[in-house]
Formats: sequence, C-alpha cells, structure tokens
Amino acid sequence: MQYQLRQRDRQTKARLGRLSTVRAVIETPAFMPVGSLGPVKGLEPDDLHALGFRLMLNNAYHLSLRPGHKVVAEFGGLHTFTGWPGAILTDSGGFQIFSLAKLRTVSDEGVTFQSHIDGSSHFISPETAIEIQEALGADIIMAFDECVALPADRAAVHEGVRRTTLWADRCQASRRRTDQALFGIVQGGLEPDLRVMSARQLVAMGFEGYAVGGLSVGESKTDMARMLEVTVPELPDDKPRYLMGVGLPEDLIEGVARGIDLFDCVVPSRHGRTGSLFTAAGRIVIKQAQYRRDERPIDAACACPVCKRFSRAYLHHLYNVKEMLGSRLNTMHNLWFFADLMQRVRGAIEQGTFAEFRDEFHRMRMAGEEADEHDQRAGTE
Amino acid sequence: MQYQLRQRDRQTKARLGRLSTVRAVIETPAFMPVGSLGPVKGLEPDDLHALGFRLMLNNAYHLSLRPGHKVVAEFGGLHTFTGWPGAILTDSGGFQIFSLAKLRTVSDEGVTFQSHIDGSSHFISPETAIEIQEALGADIIMAFDECVALPADRAAVHEGVRRTTLWADRCQASRRRTDQALFGIVQGGLEPDLRVMSARQLVAMGFEGYAVGGLSVGESKTDMARMLEVTVPELPDDKPRYLMGVGLPEDLIEGVARGIDLFDCVVPSRHGRTGSLFTAAGRIVIKQAQYRRDERPIDAACACPVCKRFSRAYLHHLYNVKEMLGSRLNTMHNLWFFADLMQRVRGAIEQGTFAEFRDEFHRMRMAGEEADEHDQRAGTE
Ligand SMILES: [Zn+2]
Ligand SMILES: [Zn+2]
Repeated sequence: MQYQLRQRDRQTKARLGRLSTVRAVIETPAFMPVGSLGPVKGLEPDDLHALGFRLMLNNAYHLSLRPGHKVVAEFGGLHTFTGWPGAILTDSGGFQIFSLAKLRTVSDEGVTFQSHIDGSSHFISPETAIEIQEALGADIIMAFDECVALPADRAAVHEGVRRTTLWADRCQASRRRTDQALFGIVQGGLEPDLRVMSARQLVAMGFEGYAVGGLSVGESKTDMARMLEVTVPELPDDKPRYLMGVGLPEDLIEGVARGIDLFDCVVPSRHGRTGSLFTAAGRIVIKQAQYRRDERPIDAACACPVCKRFSRAYLHHLYNVKEMLGSRLNTMHNLWFFADLMQRVRGAIEQGTFAEFRDEFHRMRMAGEEADEHDQRAGTE
Repeated sequence: MQYQLRQRDRQTKARLGRLSTVRAVIETPAFMPVGSLGPVKGLEPDDLHALGFRLMLNNAYHLSLRPGHKVVAEFGGLHTFTGWPGAILTDSGGFQIFSLAKLRTVSDEGVTFQSHIDGSSHFISPETAIEIQEALGADIIMAFDECVALPADRAAVHEGVRRTTLWADRCQASRRRTDQALFGIVQGGLEPDLRVMSARQLVAMGFEGYAVGGLSVGESKTDMARMLEVTVPELPDDKPRYLMGVGLPEDLIEGVARGIDLFDCVVPSRHGRTGSLFTAAGRIVIKQAQYRRDERPIDAACACPVCKRFSRAYLHHLYNVKEMLGSRLNTMHNLWFFADLMQRVRGAIEQGTFAEFRDEFHRMRMAGEEADEHDQRAGTE
C-alpha cells in the first residue's frame, strides 16, 4: 500500500490524498462501507462498486467466528471468498470484543471472552489477531488494541494506552506477511495528554497508517473534535489517518477538517434498514404516512440508482410490508449519499473551497432540521 | 394482448406460442415469477429482466390491502409504482381469500372476510375484484373465482363451479377498461365431468385466455395430470392457457406436455429464501455442513449471475449468518433455473424433440435423487 499526500487545504487541516493497493486506487478523504460478515447487508460486490466504493471494511471478529478465518484462508482470502474485487481493511476485533462479547477477562497476555453468538469461549491476543487477519488476507489490517469504554477514569484510560502500545509492538513482531499494510490505533479516551502519549509511542514504532480509536462511543461532538485536534498533529504527514467507527455526515466533514483521510461506519446501511434516509436537507423517515402517496424520489438532487427509479411512496410501501428489497434500496441510496458527499469534499479541497463547502453543508443541514421541526409543529404527518 | 400459436408438438400436446402485450413479447410456454406485494422478494425490476423474464405476477389481494389499489392507481398503475417495465398479470384474489383470509362468509353476492394482517373486515365481489384489478392496471387480469379446498365432496365442488361461472359472467359485465386481457378460471376440483362443464361454460362466454385453477393444492401429481387431460382439450387453441400456482420443475414439464402455456409459482423464490437450490441433478440444501468449504458454484452447468461469481461455501456462510444477500442470490439462481428450463423446453418443442427432452429431464432428476439417497446412506454430510 502506498499513500500519496496530494494537496493541503489552506484554511483547515483537510487534505487530499491517494491510497494505492494492489487491487484499487482510493482517493481520500474516503468513506468505507462496512460488511461485518462479508457483504454490506443485502448488497453484492457489483453494487458497492457501482456506488463508487473501492475500499470496504470487514470485521475480523465476526469472520473468525463464522465462517472461521481458516475457511476463508482456504479460498485464498476474503477477496475470493466474498467476490469483492476492491481493497479491504479488516479491523482487529478489539472494538467488537469490548462492545459485543460477554464475560471478558483482559490481561497483558490477551482477552478471554465468550462469543456473542453461542457463548463459546475464545482467546485473542495481539499474535492471534494478526494470525486471523493474515488468514483473512485484507489489504490493510489493524493492530489489536484495548478500547476502554467511556466514561472511564483516567487510570483505566492510562492502562488502556499502555496495553495498546504493548500490543501494537507484539502485533508488529508477529507479522509474517509482507503484502499487507498494518495500521496502529491511537487510544487515550478523552484525556488530551494520553492521546498525545499514545500517538507518539505508536509513531515511534512506525506504522503504515494510523487510526484514531475509542471515539464515537457516546462522547459529545465537541469532545471528539477536541481529541482529533490534539491527536492528528502528532501523526506523520506521509501516512493515512483513519477515524474508526465515524460517523454521521457532519462528523465526516468535521473529521476531514481536522486532517482525517479514512472513515468507516455502519450508519448508512443500518439507517437504510430502518428507513432513515439521508438527503442534503436532512434525513427523511420513510415509514411516515406523509410518504404514502409521495411520487418524488428520496432526493430530487440525488443521482443514485434508487432515486432514478423509485418513488418515496414505493419505498414507504416496501418498508411497510417489511420487504427486504426496501432495506437493499434504502442502503444503496444512503451509501451513494456518503460516497457522493466524500467526492464533493474532495472536489472542494481540490478547488480550495473546502471551508466554504463545510459552512454551506452545516447551513443546509440546519435549515433542513428547522424545516422538519416546523413540519412537526404544523402537524404535517 | 395477442396470442399466436406458433407450433404444435407431434408427440405431446406441447405447443409453442407468443403472447404480445403493449409492454412485452412473451415466448410461451413461460414461467411467471411472483411478486405478491410488488417485487419478487429482494429483487429489483432490472434483476428480473436480466434473468430473462418479461411477464410477472402481482397479487391483487395483497396489493389491495397494502398499499391499497387506489394509491397504486394514483401512480398510473403497478408498472409505474413498482418500476417493472415488462408485462404484469394480477390474480383476482380468489385463491388468497380462500387460503389466507380468516372468517370467510361466501354467498353469490361475494365474500366477506377478515384481513390476514390486521383482522379488518373486507368484502370482495366479482365487481370489486375487477375494480381493484383495473385500478392496479395489469396487462392481464383474472376473473374472480371460488377455489374450493380439496378434498371436497362433489356437491361443494359443483356449487363452486356454478358460482365461478356466475361470477365470471359478472366480471365480464363490470369491466370498464378495454386495454386489459381478462382470463376465465376453470374450477371443478378432481371431478372430471365438472372440470369439463366449467371449461365449456367459460369458453361459451369467450375470454381472452383460460386458467386452470384449484390445482396444486395438495392433490397427487397423477390427479393433477388427469385434470389437465380432461380440461385442456375443452379450451380453444387460439387462446393462452395458464396453470395457476404450479409448480416444481417436473410439474412444469408435465403441464407443458398437456398443452399449458403459462405457469406461476412462489417455489423458486420461497425455496431460494430457505436455501433449497435447483440444479439439473436435483436440489441442494445450502445449509448442509458439506458445503462449508465447497468452492464450486451451485451448479457448474448454470450460467446465472450467481453461479458465475459465488461459491457454495459463500452461500452456505450467508445462509448460516442469516444475511439477506443469501436470500437474494439464492432466489436469483432459482429463478434463472426456471427461466432457463422454460427456454430449453421451448427450444425442444421447436426442434421437435420435446418428448425426448421430457424423458431425459425425468431420467436426470431420478438419477439425482438416487445419488442423494446414496450420499445420505453413505453418511456424507
Ligand atoms: Zn438516491
Ligand atoms: Zn446459477
């Protein structure tokens, strides 16, 4: 994997870059759709490609449990197994273990936990996390980190940083494959000095990219911004920076403004399945009765395959009768919205107008929210 | 709608024909996929078109309840509402009311029933069935019939035929649109003389096509064949014949051999969702552990988009983790199998080799079943 820093914004920390892997060239800043168990729910590889994505995320934790990373390895890795021709990033499983798994016991050696599926007992260490990710064969793999739940006292956050650095070192030492890029993950909760310490320790070890982890876990947007503002300046200019598990469109814009290159989130697909659809003027909730006879597309300004073909009324009907095509179409529209947003972000950075773009984005969003509130007050269904 | 009888088979009653509607030309014999609530579950109109279908079935009963036929009419009909550019046939709702609805009261006037969704009370008569289907705007609509559940005593079947004829007459009388083809539905249970009586009464009234109803409801394959053998010869040569709710591949072949032109069934999509996949050598059940590491496509001889891209192991994984993409891909493969089977049937009729095709089809299927049994006895998982 190569990262090329192409252009810096003058007014913000936003930057234009290019990630090149054997399988794909990814223009950054970029959003990665999430296929926890292989596919983005309901979508084929061809769909994702047509929506403009060249890099997606798969979850090592989920795939190591089902179908098992050894099964995937027999197929030559995830690309062959899932049929996705683009690039793949796998997370190490750290976040899933700390958020999904039951009965965790954490020591410096690793984590013992029970599967969220069948309660079976598993052990994962930095070494096994690398072994699993090498078997899965993604283009980019992540170090195994300890993601401390917030709010947390300073001592626990400090301990998490210490362990994350220790584990990052062991991740590097246990690698066998040379054709995957390994990213380190900065922890440190909401403690600015611990964030800086974590970043400096990882940078000193030298990774091919750096992630900011442990955010988007319930903290305020101000706190997230503050952590980015202290962390990102510690990271080298010539390596990509990835903000994990983020987020809503406004979070992407603010992340870009603070120098982030990569994002991933289940938001577009999960919101799609629940019928919450992104538009430039805010979200629409397709189950609402006001859409029953609405002949318009989700967003008249959207050029996605769904808005070209289907009305709000049809999507309302599909949601209403619990038809899985509804989930699929809603997910496609939302993912297009995210891909298109990032493309416009890149265009604005290139034109030197990102600061204006960011202001205009927030202005539009606020106007949309005010219109929603007005509709609600006026009793529009 | 026009029907052109193009060729008769010499050894069987199979026939090659062409149905032309404003929207599509359909080569017959043909299989219609079923989209009860609009879409075939999980599939877009483009998918169905790419699989080779030009005519699909929508359920008037389901669509009149949700979203309501009046909503669909506001969109100019089902084609605009669902985005399906091909031809549509709607059933009248008779079968659904007699199989799904609760607390039916049937009189000559019509049927009062409770919705299977919310228990709300509805009344449907021949006149309202036509009104609903004219609002939905399909290319082909069906008369409202009484489908007597089997087994039934002769008196009940006789009463069903009387009422079906009475209602067919009222359906004709209440039509307002002239751009839809109306098909009559032959009833008569398993009583050959009542089948003949029903067919003659309908033919005397003159419909643009004829359906054989009340079959595929649990009777033996022999009984179904026997009913077709007495009914089809009563129907005019120059009109299409449609066997409702049928069926498995072997049923299609036997229907064609007895002069049937059109079929519809939920089998390919429902079996797809439950992971039962059709191949020339019988069905495979994708959840079985033997497919966990199977790198082969569902069917090496299949040219469908799924077999081109995905392995049995991946489909097994998708089934195992309850991923909706699995339902979608399995449905696509099964529908392709049905479309391809009918295409080969038409080719065989054209070549004058349908009788041999039919023998070979059954021989292959038997061999596949024997191989399955052998595998099971040998303990292959
Ligand atoms: Zn759209
Ligand atoms: Zn196939």
